[in-house]
Amino acid sequence: MIRTIYRKNGAVCVLNQNLLPHRSEYECLSDYREVVTAIKELKVRGAPLIGVTAAYGIALAMDSCPDDPDQRLLYWEEVIRSFANSRPTAVNLFWAIDRMKQVFELGPDNSADQLRKRLWQEAEQICAEDIQTNLTMGEQGVHVLPDSARVLTICNAGALATCGYGTALGVIRSAHRVKRIEKVWVCETRPVLQGSRLTIWELQQDEIPVSLITDSMAASIMQQGKVDVVVAGADRIAANGDTANKIGTYALAVLAAYHNIPFYIAAPLSTVDMNIKSGQQIPIEERGRDEVRQIGGIYITVPEVEVYNPAFDVTPSKLITGIITEAGVIKPPYIDSLIKVKGK
Amino acid sequence: MIRTIYRKNGAVCVLNQNLLPHRSEYECLSDYREVVTAIKELKVRGAPLIGVTAAYGIALAMDSCPDDPDQRLLYWEEVIRSFANSRPTAVNLFWAIDRMKQVFELGPDNSADQLRKRLWQEAEQICAEDIQTNLTMGEQGVHVLPDSARVLTICNAGALATCGYGTALGVIRSAHRVKRIEKVWVCETRPVLQGSRLTIWELQQDEIPVSLITDSMAASIMQQGKVDVVVAGADRIAANGDTANKIGTYALAVLAAYHNIPFYIAAPLSTVDMNIKSGQQIPIEERGRDEVRQIGGIYITVPEVEVYNPAFDVTPSKLITGIITEAGVIKPPYIDSLIKVKGK
Repeated sequence: MIRTIYRKNGAVCVLNQNLLPHRSEYECLSDYREVVTAIKELKVRGAPLIGVTAAYGIALAMDSCPDDPDQRLLYWEEVIRSFANSRPTAVNLFWAIDRMKQVFELGPDNSADQLRKRLWQEAEQICAEDIQTNLTMGEQGVHVLPDSARVLTICNAGALATCGYGTALGVIRSAHRVKRIEKVWVCETRPVLQGSRLTIWELQQDEIPVSLITDSMAASIMQQGKVDVVVAGADRIAANGDTANKIGTYALAVLAAYHNIPFYIAAPLSTVDMNIKSGQQIPIEERGRDEVRQIGGIYITVPEVEVYNPAFDVTPSKLITGIITEAGVIKPPYIDSLIKVKGK
Repeated sequence: MIRTIYRKNGAVCVLNQNLLPHRSEYECLSDYREVVTAIKELKVRGAPLIGVTAAYGIALAMDSCPDDPDQRLLYWEEVIRSFANSRPTAVNLFWAIDRMKQVFELGPDNSADQLRKRLWQEAEQICAEDIQTNLTMGEQGVHVLPDSARVLTICNAGALATCGYGTALGVIRSAHRVKRIEKVWVCETRPVLQGSRLTIWELQQDEIPVSLITDSMAASIMQQGKVDVVVAGADRIAANGDTANKIGTYALAVLAAYHNIPFYIAAPLSTVDMNIKSGQQIPIEERGRDEVRQIGGIYITVPEVEVYNPAFDVTPSKLITGIITEAGVIKPPYIDSLIKVKGK
């Protein structure tokens, strides 16, 4: 199994995903600010893993917290702010921060050492739960795939986006185990190429048959009848089911609807944000222009060209056939069905 | 004005488009087989320019043709076969070859020298006509754009795809001259990046405002109401209006229809192939896997990964608002309107 994050000797070690698939290297970070930077620079990415990494980073930071309770609180708030400002779209980040906050707020009478221990426990608990959630999601999701399924996916919603097994790729893994997968079509996922760099690497390790395409080819393979179902991950799901995910996901949803192909989102309930009514309220991160201007550090266009680089788009819930979660496959109307599993 | 091809001292000189935008270098080819290779390797590309280049290459080849009429015919047939097999989708190639054939077949009684002269004249005539056609197309097409138009395009249907001015970019140029362009959104156009490498370079030289996006972002900007019209080129148009163009064009057509955005094709009548009834009969070139696996010669994925790499897709005519040609803007039903301008 691919390990994306672990604790070692007072450090948080992360698999630097920017180096994949060429090199599989861990970086052990002993300063929490390096963990924040690792999130910002996409060394770790994927909504669930961003949450887990923030939890580990917060625990790491608190290893060095002041003994004085007032100073400790000020320090805590600074740490929380740093992680909360690292990336805006994936709500799992804020969900994980909230879980760590609950531990912190429960323990004002504890010694600093007790607090540290409990924060590490919580971070490791979030990671362990994430794997379990993904396994359950995989079991739930396998039933939405037809036999000999040719599945199209985008970005990496796999083991590399989580503590292990994956969300969309977890469903694919579970389906592969019961011999239900004929092929996985993988969109390369420009600009950061999580599809070609990460998903291809990950699925090949499990010997799941893959075909790589550019994002622009998805429509053509759908037109040719070569896709049975689309399964993608999510970075944030609004209370009405509108879903933010990697840029390009919305295009796949429109194209799937046009070709009468089912379109599923696979995500843990921690990705559902009941505090926002619709996708219009989801903050969409815009990233640096050089992600589009360059590939592998080399300019592929006129260096000073104007670029628009949103990292995510929002798929309206009406285009989503179902949302695969650990609590089952949620179906429309999402506004009702999400309340049932998630509460208000 | 950008010059894409010219004759010089017994050679055909082409702008090597694989080096753009970093270097603007001409290669002068004195062997027609190098011209065939230049077409295959995309040093020259774009449906109209492929046709022109083949015409120049045929004239170049015939500079060295045998004096004996029988041997000359055998040689001619070999030359024609080489060019006809260079790339399969753009019908302008076969159209240009047919024009050269007509000159050859008219001249059996001519001396080899007379024939050579006439073939060169024909090649240069095709190139001159192409520019004129594009200028007329630009005048015709400008009227389909709204004021302050925000136009989305894909690939390069510009001066670089022709002998000058361009088809889709010709329309944009004409509209820019009458101050009708607010902005041109350019899809980078993976895998070969004709959008980011060529179209951005070309439009910046004319100081036309551009924004570069990845192909996966087109849906999102349409959803945000940032696109007024899509204009793309064509490699082959069937008698019913179905249009083959760069891979990704079909996705834009579906997305434009979903967002109620007009979708135009701009192409000379030489791109219309009345010999085929529908797009299903258009041969679609599949290119090498490394175009997808690599960028700039560097692997971006697992090197041995399975890849599907069609260079073109087919947009059904029902998704096309109009076809901008030198004979006006052709409207549905195309099966009737194309016969009117083109004959059976």
